[in-house]
Amino acid sequence: MANAALVSCSLNLSSGSKPSSHLVPSASVSLQISRSPFRRILLKGDKRLRKCRTVYAMAVSMGQEAGVQPGSGSDHSSNEAPTPKKVMVIGGDGYCGWATSLHLSNKNYEVAVVDNLVRRSFDHQLGLDSLTPIASIHNRIRRWKSLTGKDIGLYVGDICDFEFLSEAFKSFEPDAVVHFGEQRSAPYSMIDRSRAVYTQYNNVIGTLNALFAIKEFGEDCHLVKLGTMGEYGTPNIDIEEGFITITHNGRTDTLPYPKQASSFYHLSKVHDSHNIAFTCKAWGIRATDLNQGVVYGVKTEETAMHEELSSAYRLWKRRPDPGYLDIRDTVQCIELAIANPAERGEFRVFNQFTEQFSVNELAALVTKAGKKLGLNVRTVYVPNPRVEAEEHYYNAKHMKLAELGLEPHLLSDSLLDSLLNFAVQYRDRVDSRQIMPSVSWRKIGAKPKTVPA
Amino acid sequence: MANAALVSCSLNLSSGSKPSSHLVPSASVSLQISRSPFRRILLKGDKRLRKCRTVYAMAVSMGQEAGVQPGSGSDHSSNEAPTPKKVMVIGGDGYCGWATSLHLSNKNYEVAVVDNLVRRSFDHQLGLDSLTPIASIHNRIRRWKSLTGKDIGLYVGDICDFEFLSEAFKSFEPDAVVHFGEQRSAPYSMIDRSRAVYTQYNNVIGTLNALFAIKEFGEDCHLVKLGTMGEYGTPNIDIEEGFITITHNGRTDTLPYPKQASSFYHLSKVHDSHNIAFTCKAWGIRATDLNQGVVYGVKTEETAMHEELSSAYRLWKRRPDPGYLDIRDTVQCIELAIANPAERGEFRVFNQFTEQFSVNELAALVTKAGKKLGLNVRTVYVPNPRVEAEEHYYNAKHMKLAELGLEPHLLSDSLLDSLLNFAVQYRDRVDSRQIMPSVSWRKIGAKPKTVPA
Repeated sequence: MANAALVSCSLNLSSGSKPSSHLVPSASVSLQISRSPFRRILLKGDKRLRKCRTVYAMAVSMGQEAGVQPGSGSDHSSNEAPTPKKVMVIGGDGYCGWATSLHLSNKNYEVAVVDNLVRRSFDHQLGLDSLTPIASIHNRIRRWKSLTGKDIGLYVGDICDFEFLSEAFKSFEPDAVVHFGEQRSAPYSMIDRSRAVYTQYNNVIGTLNALFAIKEFGEDCHLVKLGTMGEYGTPNIDIEEGFITITHNGRTDTLPYPKQASSFYHLSKVHDSHNIAFTCKAWGIRATDLNQGVVYGVKTEETAMHEELSSAYRLWKRRPDPGYLDIRDTVQCIELAIANPAERGEFRVFNQFTEQFSVNELAALVTKAGKKLGLNVRTVYVPNPRVEAEEHYYNAKHMKLAELGLEPHLLSDSLLDSLLNFAVQYRDRVDSRQIMPSVSWRKIGAKPKTVPA
Repeated sequence: MANAALVSCSLNLSSGSKPSSHLVPSASVSLQISRSPFRRILLKGDKRLRKCRTVYAMAVSMGQEAGVQPGSGSDHSSNEAPTPKKVMVIGGDGYCGWATSLHLSNKNYEVAVVDNLVRRSFDHQLGLDSLTPIASIHNRIRRWKSLTGKDIGLYVGDICDFEFLSEAFKSFEPDAVVHFGEQRSAPYSMIDRSRAVYTQYNNVIGTLNALFAIKEFGEDCHLVKLGTMGEYGTPNIDIEEGFITITHNGRTDTLPYPKQASSFYHLSKVHDSHNIAFTCKAWGIRATDLNQGVVYGVKTEETAMHEELSSAYRLWKRRPDPGYLDIRDTVQCIELAIANPAERGEFRVFNQFTEQFSVNELAALVTKAGKKLGLNVRTVYVPNPRVEAEEHYYNAKHMKLAELGLEPHLLSDSLLDSLLNFAVQYRDRVDSRQIMPSVSWRKIGAKPKTVPA
């Protein structure tokens, strides 16, 4: 195995009560289920709904109705207050999903979160915790209501359970569905057979169910699906946005860009893309597939409003040379996709990142920014746990979201300063055992793995 | 919906006891489980195996040891009798799987069938039956033994159950696995949501399990996986065998051929191909992906030996313009792939068909052959239940199996004569209600569908 591919930046604080602090590769929080402010949805005498154990909705029962802004999303500009667009955010309890839910709510979309909260239990399984304390989804939603007067609906359940998803669809009647609700860790999918199978089952079947729900209950609904830049792999030609025009033996066609995913997680997203493309063609589904790069960043305008609104703090150890983007750009991209929906039957693909860095470039940026803060930064080369070329060409296009108006936040030194400052602020919560890669792409086996204490 | 795409040939017999006879689109048989000649495998005191309810093996207890031919597969030519290659045929009770199992056994491979027999129960669900009577897998294997003296092992169980598959692998220790064991009907996958989900779950997870079993229990084992020509869709450029060399913006790479599958079944095969390609790269699996065309034909050399050895008789209604091949060529292709295995880490793709016909060309062939037999043949144009272009370019390469030595049986008039004669012979078993397409690609819904009596 090559030993110079992955750079882990170990930051030794030159001052402070703890001897060392690290960037944390994964993050989440203990599970708190507080049901008190919720009530079961009991709609129009629908007895089937009463049987459904997992459907909850946020009761509108707290705080004053402050700052009500009934306007619609950014595609409406009239002075009349049109009916707000309804957006269902599947996986709305996650890092990107929660920030997106708040952003859309702030922009006067009517938002409902659908989430099975399973990510929080994965962290329990693996002994992980968030760098920052994360409030329960229920407390987050209550806090948002008390700060802004805006409601966010909540449906707790698993979209692989079609009965649950159907009830959520029929109850909320979304105009758009943003689908973050997948197992989204490549290393998790490479721990053992059962996690590989879980990842593909959960992601593929969940997305199939979402497609069937749209066809059955809201065929005009726009699916905004989160994919990943990792679906493309590292071809020796430029990566286009979803499709490539090929001339071959004198004939020409524009075809889906060939995919070469390199983990069971990334593969699950490739499978999703193919399934979605088919349903757009066969059923007239309108869909946007957002192939997202690595998201970094601590705060958006909305999560910064209160500590209880924080998303988990993450900086992922990733394959070399992908695209990166700020979480503030993630939420902006989602809004742009919703405000400018795909046509009926259209399957469009946007590459969602703003800058491209090699791991070495990133290490140099961290080193430079750390030194400015007086941190003692060392770059440590560790074996690459993944199976991939150490050096390769990489040039991916990302114009379509810019054309829709994306104004990127770039990874400047000042931003890096703020990220590092955040890590320093929460250094007491750092678990240094989680820094190094513990999953090997080659050593994955069929037997269930448990994590040592 | 266009109404001239699918041609169904309705054959009115000019004589005979029944007023009309039809080509039957699907076929299978009643389920008979006869356990008497079997015993549980009790190997070397392995208590785990004793617990496994679903593992059965053929007892060597019948007939004389006739015609024992201990030679190996066709890649061995020495006069010494080398240890025969062991081939596990997953889905070995099916149309192609059974014919392949017999062919390989006849060629002195040591063969074990792995099958959950679920295809037989699908036919019960849908009220289908085979044109020809099909013996139980147990009776078939006993008949083969009595005719040839050759044993075929049998493991009845579901490869989605990894414990079952593991025990079968550890017990049989295959040198090659031929994987036919998937839900392989496009219309079945388009009946309703639950069948769509079942198809993708069963096919994707079963194949993942096969890959993990190879990695865990026999990493040198060669996976020969059945894909379909339908994975490619109908691009406006030539279809290559699995990979295409693309020059784009001045750079060149050879990449997986873009896939545009057009049913949840075809999509499941696309997902499989991506998963297998990844494991070849990451784990060094050796794999051959056989993108097969439409298989026709009643008999192989081996199934013709006795009525109880028959495979189901099928002639599928399929999308326009795919490749076709005789079932005698299917079994030949599988043997060629096994005898010339992929290298460690190699993912190779062969397009497995011998001729290309449009539906109209096929209808003309049937008409011509039917007239020779004195049949009154009418061509009936019916609406196309699938979503696809009615007219399109189609040119698919299929050189690699020819280069390995495939000697095709072409769809000559005489062969067509014999197929039609077979239909006439079994005309009393024809169920004319099954001729017309009953599943619509556009009308598939989320609610479970049942089949009217």
